[in-house]
Amino acid sequence: MSNPSNRSNPSKVLEARLPACQSRVEAALDRLLPTADTLPMRLHEAMRYAVMGSGKRLRPTLVYATGEALGLEPESLDGPACAVELIHAYSLVHDDLPCMDDDDLRRGRPTCHKAYDEATAVLVGDALQALAFRALAEESSGTIGTEARLKMVASLSMAAGSRGMVGGQALDLAATGQTLDLAQLEDLHIHKTGALIRSSVMLGALADPDHDQEGLERLDRYAKSIGLAFQIQDDILDVEGTTDALGKSSGADARMHKATYPALLGLKEARAHGRELIDRALASLEPFDARADCLRGLAHFIMERGK
Amino acid sequence: MSNPSNRSNPSKVLEARLPACQSRVEAALDRLLPTADTLPMRLHEAMRYAVMGSGKRLRPTLVYATGEALGLEPESLDGPACAVELIHAYSLVHDDLPCMDDDDLRRGRPTCHKAYDEATAVLVGDALQALAFRALAEESSGTIGTEARLKMVASLSMAAGSRGMVGGQALDLAATGQTLDLAQLEDLHIHKTGALIRSSVMLGALADPDHDQEGLERLDRYAKSIGLAFQIQDDILDVEGTTDALGKSSGADARMHKATYPALLGLKEARAHGRELIDRALASLEPFDARADCLRGLAHFIMERGK
Repeated sequence: MSNPSNRSNPSKVLEARLPACQSRVEAALDRLLPTADTLPMRLHEAMRYAVMGSGKRLRPTLVYATGEALGLEPESLDGPACAVELIHAYSLVHDDLPCMDDDDLRRGRPTCHKAYDEATAVLVGDALQALAFRALAEESSGTIGTEARLKMVASLSMAAGSRGMVGGQALDLAATGQTLDLAQLEDLHIHKTGALIRSSVMLGALADPDHDQEGLERLDRYAKSIGLAFQIQDDILDVEGTTDALGKSSGADARMHKATYPALLGLKEARAHGRELIDRALASLEPFDARADCLRGLAHFIMERGK
Repeated sequence: MSNPSNRSNPSKVLEARLPACQSRVEAALDRLLPTADTLPMRLHEAMRYAVMGSGKRLRPTLVYATGEALGLEPESLDGPACAVELIHAYSLVHDDLPCMDDDDLRRGRPTCHKAYDEATAVLVGDALQALAFRALAEESSGTIGTEARLKMVASLSMAAGSRGMVGGQALDLAATGQTLDLAQLEDLHIHKTGALIRSSVMLGALADPDHDQEGLERLDRYAKSIGLAFQIQDDILDVEGTTDALGKSSGADARMHKATYPALLGLKEARAHGRELIDRALASLEPFDARADCLRGLAHFIMERGK
């Protein structure tokens, strides 16, 4: 793996590639989600409401970008790209419920239980999770081997489950009003947002029939670092952003007395910690050639994004 | 396939086999569920509360009994048996939530959100669904081929999703207070309970590397019939049973003004319809030999059970 990447600008590469990744996964999600006139119609309409038409599609882009770094065609990655986005979308719907974070706004629109009702929102989340696993089992069939796809099911179910994302949600709920130290806060976010980000990269890597152990480990280190940086930037944005710019209620963390990086470290230190993680992520990618520039660009994007 | 089954008594066969199936799947679930001292502890404790120590284990028994009918060893079926029970258990937890059926009692104990809290109950359901797919991807590995396991993931995700069980829940919610005719009521239950019962039989059948199309279709017809019969008996028990015997609040359907078979057909007709479905199920199994007696016994059991 040569390294001509210092001649290119990863942020520019990402900027050029991001719209294609976004529209690619949106087309695939559109094919995968039952149409809004399929029975039960209200449920399917609400599932589409929760998934389509908004969102950065960061996780699917990570799947495609990892594939690109390994020389894979995006066609083979639609299944895993949809799967991680569906898990993410379901988690947002359940996370917004009144018994959870009780949020009214998400991505600039009423949350699913506000636009529909609570029972529908519970069912939307449940159905989206099931659909995520269907996407792995049925989409892209033929282009990825059965063994690799079964490993993807194992990876995603682990990342989405009680020792991954859902476990992180539980830790988050338990932490509200508690004083956490930095190690505890990191542990929370390694689960809550980190596990699915790591799994996105892992799914992209597993699609490569020739993946080697060292490459996998480097990609995993990259994913771990950007996962944590992502959360730090999320916390910073919650302090600094406006509700309009974020598309969700700003200042919610402080109101809920949630532990955050800025609250623990101060804004300046939190930012420095985030940048350090991005440097670590970029260092992990060192042996990869220019095809990994989209991944590099994503690392920069994560700390520079405004929402 | 000879037919010496008229010489044996399927109900006696089931009676002898049921405890073994129950303890087999309970041991497998116990291995699969994280221990209650694994972080996050409260979540894992609540997951175990929702799954362990109660329940008829009808769906896992269907998996094992289907395997038995096809000459498979139970060892190879622990993964699928756990998977269907985990999907069932998660659906009960979410179904009992205040925004859904708002039930306080389940299997003779406080429902999950009563014993814990609503947020935990949402997360318990979410984590159990993820674990179900992990059980298919990781348990029994080696004994079932990767292709068959991937087909199981596809079958279960379809059965659990918006055009299966969750779709049935949505139809059920929409039907509360509405006047349904028999065809609409059947459609509701084909989704709500039927899809997972069918998938239980299908998972058992997919584990057979030599399954033939005619056998699959017969088993599927069997499963469809007992699925509907199961719901009819459930409705009858809700009218006739006491809260004590059922382990859940009796008369709940009438209080919620839900459409039921006894309400539509009268008790006598509902019972006759159920028996007719059981006869149809038994007829589907005709070419199978005595190894299908456990399946035959389950068909009888479904209409004769008292809870």
